Order: sequence, then structure tokens, then C-alpha cells
Amino acid sequence: MARKDKVRRPRAETPKGFRDYFGAEVTQRKAMLDAIAHVYHLYGFEALESSAVETVEALGKFLPDVDRPNAGVFAFREAGPEETEADGDWLALRYDLTAPLARVYAQHRNDLPTPYRRYAMGPVWRNEKPGPGRFRQFYQCDADTVGTASVAADAEICAMLADTLEAVGIERGDYVVRVNNRKVLNGVMEVAGLSGDDKEAERGIVLRAIDKLDRLGVEGVRALLGKGRKDESGDFTEGAGLDEAQADAVMAFMDARRDTGAATCGRLRDIVTDSATGLEGVSELEQIASLLEAQGYGPDRIVIDPSVVRGLGYYTGPVYEADLTFEITDEKGGPRQFGSVAGGGRYDDLVTRFTGQAVPATGVSIGVDRLLAALIAKGRVDRTAVGPVVVTVMDRDRMADYQSICATLRQAGIRAEVYLGNPKNFGNQLKYADRRGSPAAVIQGTDEAARGVVQVKDLILGARLAQDATLDEWKENPSQTEVALDDLVPFLRKLLG
Amino acid sequence: MARKDKVRRPRAETPKGFRDYFGAEVTQRKAMLDAIAHVYHLYGFEALESSAVETVEALGKFLPDVDRPNAGVFAFREAGPEETEADGDWLALRYDLTAPLARVYAQHRNDLPTPYRRYAMGPVWRNEKPGPGRFRQFYQCDADTVGTASVAADAEICAMLADTLEAVGIERGDYVVRVNNRKVLNGVMEVAGLSGDDKEAERGIVLRAIDKLDRLGVEGVRALLGKGRKDESGDFTEGAGLDEAQADAVMAFMDARRDTGAATCGRLRDIVTDSATGLEGVSELEQIASLLEAQGYGPDRIVIDPSVVRGLGYYTGPVYEADLTFEITDEKGGPRQFGSVAGGGRYDDLVTRFTGQAVPATGVSIGVDRLLAALIAKGRVDRTAVGPVVVTVMDRDRMADYQSICATLRQAGIRAEVYLGNPKNFGNQLKYADRRGSPAAVIQGTDEAARGVVQVKDLILGARLAQDATLDEWKENPSQTEVALDDLVPFLRKLLG
Repeated sequence: MARKDKVRRPRAETPKGFRDYFGAEVTQRKAMLDAIAHVYHLYGFEALESSAVETVEALGKFLPDVDRPNAGVFAFREAGPEETEADGDWLALRYDLTAPLARVYAQHRNDLPTPYRRYAMGPVWRNEKPGPGRFRQFYQCDADTVGTASVAADAEICAMLADTLEAVGIERGDYVVRVNNRKVLNGVMEVAGLSGDDKEAERGIVLRAIDKLDRLGVEGVRALLGKGRKDESGDFTEGAGLDEAQADAVMAFMDARRDTGAATCGRLRDIVTDSATGLEGVSELEQIASLLEAQGYGPDRIVIDPSVVRGLGYYTGPVYEADLTFEITDEKGGPRQFGSVAGGGRYDDLVTRFTGQAVPATGVSIGVDRLLAALIAKGRVDRTAVGPVVVTVMDRDRMADYQSICATLRQAGIRAEVYLGNPKNFGNQLKYADRRGSPAAVIQGTDEAARGVVQVKDLILGARLAQDATLDEWKENPSQTEVALDDLVPFLRKLLG
Repeated sequence: MARKDKVRRPRAETPKGFRDYFGAEVTQRKAMLDAIAHVYHLYGFEALESSAVETVEALGKFLPDVDRPNAGVFAFREAGPEETEADGDWLALRYDLTAPLARVYAQHRNDLPTPYRRYAMGPVWRNEKPGPGRFRQFYQCDADTVGTASVAADAEICAMLADTLEAVGIERGDYVVRVNNRKVLNGVMEVAGLSGDDKEAERGIVLRAIDKLDRLGVEGVRALLGKGRKDESGDFTEGAGLDEAQADAVMAFMDARRDTGAATCGRLRDIVTDSATGLEGVSELEQIASLLEAQGYGPDRIVIDPSVVRGLGYYTGPVYEADLTFEITDEKGGPRQFGSVAGGGRYDDLVTRFTGQAVPATGVSIGVDRLLAALIAKGRVDRTAVGPVVVTVMDRDRMADYQSICATLRQAGIRAEVYLGNPKNFGNQLKYADRRGSPAAVIQGTDEAARGVVQVKDLILGARLAQDATLDEWKENPSQTEVALDDLVPFLRKLLG
């Protein structure tokens, strides 16, 4: 194909797993993030934008997908003081917004209020194998409260999460915030005899099994708690090796959800009654439930749900997750619940890494792309992004006049642009206007200029007529109107609705 | 200091040359960028957010600071298909928003309108030696028109730049957009006998000399055009080695600015009369000047100014720069003009790298940090960021009530939060409210709760009284008021003004 003496040109491609976002993709996401930031701000959270680059040692190893062998960060070595590579620190792109927050709080704690409520939104990077719909740069949107052990902080974030979902356009009834507590989970492990340091692998298997309840059902989870499970493809997943009684305890825990938070907590208390940690966890859940109930966040919005696990190893107390409960059509054409769009929990040890002092913290992360996809699925995003009015060029020498028409429109708040391509072929100008999604084209030849008028082509009506119109309608050409230049602004305002 | 057996803790530090942005620093910048995006959008520009990571080959070597030996990108090698490092592409963080635009346009040109007007805003990264006020991650904010050779596109961007500066709060008279043309400059080089391929070094010295006119004055530039120049510290900068006649031509060019664009262009025409390229450049400047004048952008806003060079090597036609003309106090306490906050020009070859086809383009980049600093210097940024109303905790068991008070305030659009630290010491709660910049603290003990009232402490008035008040004023305690819970929203609305 390519001749050997051909110039070697760079490939015009994003690196694998990266993508570009155009026009409405950018502005729709921005509008959603602005709405979220408004709620966070009302709750007293302050904006923070930390650097995208961190030292590898500051980031630590807290990547969520511990299952995936290729999970990692994009890292590079800083040139050292002598500018020999060997001397430098290892730097990396942040993989989430929580690890940087821990670093920021440790670094600036004397200048920050305690507790410190902060929100952050921006891209994070994962050096993972890209896949369909799986990107290596994506947005996160977090809110955290650092420096308080009070579960009122956890309750507050759950309430804020519910408010946030409603603010961006998820209606009540279409979401639920589910709350659990790692301490209860640890209590269950204790009761099931899985609390020793030597049982970490088993605990991991149990956690992941609970997390898969939705997908595998009770039988599948039970198999994973015991000897293991063969899936449809014949692949075998090793089990935790629990005996009947141990598995019963775990299954009872997952099945502990009742109609009210109080009833669920009562059931949990029975299950972990022999574990101090477990009882502490239940008591925290009770406090959260009663705080939320007193503020009117009933089980239609926030529920205590023992099946919530959250993958991250660093959670130490309450964990929470926001699920969208409406159905969408999955890849196979069947209905399925939209599922999780946000999650978080209490992590009391991340700042301690730096300072040695206990700094309790809790926070939530919203999956920006997933939430935006949900809003689009629900028709909650304004997708009728209106292109600019296009002023066509009939006479190359009168470019200044066309620009002036645009200036007048813009001053009236109407988005407008002059066609800046080669004006020779007028059809191309209209095709361009089409491609831009223009609602109207403004046309002014020498004759119209002399009379102080313009022709306005209603491109939306035009497109409709092109599909539906009878011959008589076409002849009337109702989509084109002569308008006095002085009347152009009010005419277009009306046309734009 | 540190004991040998001490746990090795990670340092809580940003990498050198990186920094964090807190609260108002984030929201002030965001407000400015929103105002800029609004103008760009009105002009028909579409948002684009390209990936932060590009292949090194796509980025190319167009870094602006060619003088600096350490200038560079943050690059890292991708794991190859076999996951051996050796196989992978070299990737890098983008160092500006123009190189990615060229890649995006080349990659997606069949799906994009032509001309393609796009804006982009976001961080870029430079692997440079950090210095005071010089960071390795900073924001840029660009607007470009790709796919048209018409200088109407250049004129449009200059007009938009003027509108943008006024939209963010720079008053007319406090800025000027200066326009020049590289073709005129090339014509001057030709006339001065510096047009051959073997004269690239000399041309570079001449360009940099012209760029330093503000700083070095006529004599200094003249020295750099000739044998060279010794600065105050005794350091010698080599000159371009021009003879008298050659240097005269360059100096005449720099001195060509007249009162009107037309007069300046007339003078330039005389100087480059023997260069076809130069004459073409003058003719383009004339078109730009007349387009802008016809639209009412007089020399109080946009001027033709031959001393504008713009450092980047890739410019091929019109170049432009926005300078803020008001004075600020420099490091030595003397007055100096604020200077450049934006610049750009026409670059017709960046897309050609990828496609081999000519794709003319022109665009501007705003220095976000500098423009924000200017707005702050001019008092154009709302710096009275109001902290939240703080609801104090008098009774730990009534946390739900305090949260409910907050919820009521938020529903009324009033920013509010409950104190979530240890409530034992009430003084600490008020200190916290102070640190948060709270306008008011709400206090409700058991007695107030029983009577359905709260105490509101006006912290702004309180702070003023603490400085000025007489003893009698203090005794009256006018900064604290008892308010019925039902009246709290209107009371706070009034207090917040």
C-alpha cells in the first residue's frame, strides 16, 4: 500500500482507551456537574482542585480493582536534581480523587478548618486494559468530610447524595441510597470464624460473593461461600470453604433487610450479638437511620441494606451506594435495573498514612459518565442543542456587513456566525448550516442590502417540509421570509421560541 | 532527628512545580471560564474536550519555549500488546491545546463541519524547571477556527477576544488587541537579505530581538540586530550580525505603527515593497483592519502593530496578542503595564503534518492564571465568598434537629451546615464558624428548642464590634438576636443582604 519513499506521517489517533468529547457531550456533562456542585456548595462543601500529578508514594496502593492484574497507574520518573533520571521521584497521574484528598489534608491541615468538607470534580486516569465503554481517563465527582468520627457526617452525605440525584433530574422513586456498615460485616465474619489475620483470603472471597448477590442469586452466592462455583461457561471460581453454619451466618446477614431501618438493625443485632465490633456497627447504623428518618429521608430514598459491600479495602465503617432503580434495556435486549451511579463510605486510615495521627473521614464518589448516561436514558438532558444562526455570504466583499449582522444578533443574546468557508457554492453554505444544526440561515444579496432587508430561511421548518410537504406547500415556500434588518432580532427570537 | 526504627511515612507534598487550588481559587476561575465560554459559544464555537494524554508522535515538537533547554513534556511508555514495555507507544501529557486540536481535526475531519470553530479549556502540563509563580500544570483557554484561509476568521477571533475581555470585566481602554502578520515580517527579512534557508539562526535572533523591544528599548534591539549585546550583569547575547542597511530595514518595520490601521499598512507597504510575501501580508492586514473598523472595533480596542511577534515558530500569517494596558506595581515597587494575557495567530501547517493536505487554521489562547490575576488586581472578582451559616451543636442528642434546621435553610437557597466536630467546647464551634467565613451562627439549646426559637449570632457585625465597639454597645450585644424558628429564613435572608 504505502510506498517506501513516502513521508512517514504521525497517526492522528488518541492513545488506546482515550477519547475526545465534542460539543454537547462537553456541555451536558458540565451542566450536570454544575448542578451537583450547587448542592454540594449549599451543604457547606468547599471546592478543591488538586494537581493531576502526584508522587507515587503519596498516592499509595489503593486502586479499587484488586482483581485485575493490569490495574495500575500511569507513572513516570521525574528528572532528579542533577537531571539524571535515576535521581528523581516517581510521579503518577491520580487514579481517583480520594488519595489526593488524603495528601492535601495531611499537607495543609493547619490551614484548613476541621472538619473539612470538600468537593472535587475532574478527570482521573487508570492504566488498565481498555475495553468497550471502558476508558483510561474518566471523570469523578467526589464529596468528603475529613476530620470527624461522627456518623452524622455519613448520614449527611447520604442525604446530600439523595438531594443531588433529585437536583440533576432523577425523580424520587427512581433511585435509592443503600447504607451498610463494614463493622457489621466484620462482626459477621467474626461470628463465622473468619476474623483472624490468616483468613484474609477467605474474607475477600466472602466480600466479593456478597457483592455478586444481584447477579448470581442466593444459590450462586451460597456456592461461593462453600466449595466454589462453576459458571455457565464452565469456568470454576474457588469458594471460601465455609461450613454450613458459617455460611448460614453470612446468608442470614445478607437476608437481614426488613421494611424499616429500625427493623433491619434489630435483625442485624441478633446476628452479630457475639461480636463487639458488629454491635458497634449496628449501633452506628441505628444512629444513621434515625438521623435520616428525623429529617424526612424515608425508605423511599435511603434504606439500611446489608447486601451493600463496596469493593474498596480501605473502608472502615458505614458504606453507602446510590442505585438507580428504573429499568433500561441491556445488551441482550432484556430489561435490567440501571444500577449503581455513586458509592462511598468511611475510611479512617488514609490520612494516618502520612501523619500517624487518626483522621477519620467519609465521602462519596459519583460515577459521572454513568449518571450522565442515566439522565440521557431518562430524557432529562436537553439534547436539542441549538446551533448558531448562520449568516451566509452572497458577496465576498461585504464580509464586514455580514459580521455586523452577527454582532447585532450576539448582542441580543442570539448565537450567530458568518459562513467562513469558500462561499462560491451556495448549496455548500446551506449544507454547512445543516451540519451545524442551525435553526435559521440569514441571506442578504446586493438587492436585499440596498433595500435594508434580509431573507431568513427557517431551517427547522424547512427540514420538516422536506419530509412532509405537498407540492402546493412547497410552492408557497413558507420556510423563507423577507425581514427588515431592523426587525431581524425580534423575528429570530420568535422563530427560536 | 528521625529514629531509625521509625515507620517510613510518605511525604504529604505535591510534586515540585504543582499546586492545589482551594475554594474561591477554584470557583473564581470557574466563573471567569464560564463567562469566556459564553462569549465563545455566542460566536458559534463548539466545546471540545480532548484527552489529556496523547501519543508523543501526535503531539510533535512544537513547544513554545525553544530557548529553554529543559522545556519538555511528561512522557511515559505504554505497555505493548505483549505487555512488555518495549513494544508500547510513547505517550505524553498535552503541553497545550493546539497540538491536540490538530490531531482531533485530522482524526475526525469527516464528521466535523468545515470550517470547524471550537473552544477548549483545561489544564496542560510542561516538564520544565519550576520557579516562583511558574507551575508545571496550568490552565489554558483556547478558541480556534480550522479549515478556512479567510482572514475574516482572524479578524473574527480578534473581535471575539476584545468582547471576551470586556465580558469578564476588563473595561474598554484597559486593554488593546495588537495585530501583526508573519508574512510582513518574512517580507522584512527578505528585504534585509535574511530569507535563505541558511539564515534561520539569524532570523530567530531577529524575531527574539523584536519581541524584546518593550524591555530593551530601541538601542538594545539595535545591538542585538548587529554585533550583540552585553546586559547589566555582563552577560553577552550574540547578535544577528546585520549590517547598517539591514538593521535599518528591521528598525523601520518596528517603527511603522501609525495612528490608524490604514496609515500603518501604508507605511509597511513602503518597507516591504520589494517582497511579494511582504505585500501579501500587508494586504491581509489591510483586510483585517477594514473588517474590524467596519464592525466598530476602533484603535481604542484593536490596532495593527508591527512590533507583535509571538514566539511560536509555527505561525504562518496574522498573529495577535491582547495586552492589558493598566499599571500594576512590579516586584521592585515601581509601576509597570500588566501586559499580555492572550495571544495567537494563523498556523496553516499543523494539521498537514497528519494528512498531507493543506488545512489552514487560526486561533487564540488565553493565559487563564494571568487574566484571573488581572481581574483580581482590578477588583473585578467577587472575593467576598460567603461561608455557610453554621448551626452549632448544643445538645449532641438533637443532631437531627440541627440537620433539619440546615435542610430548611438550604431549601431556601441559604448555604448552611451543622458543626460536625466535637461539640464539647462551644468556643471551638464559634472559632470554626470564623474560619469558615460564616456570616452567622445559629444556636439552639434545650430551652430555645422548647420555645421554638433560635439565637442568631451575626458574625460579621460581631467581628466589627470586636474591633470598634464601646463598652455600652457591647453590653447591648446587638450581634445576637432571638428569632422564632419559623422566621429564621427571612431573618437570615435580610442579614445576608
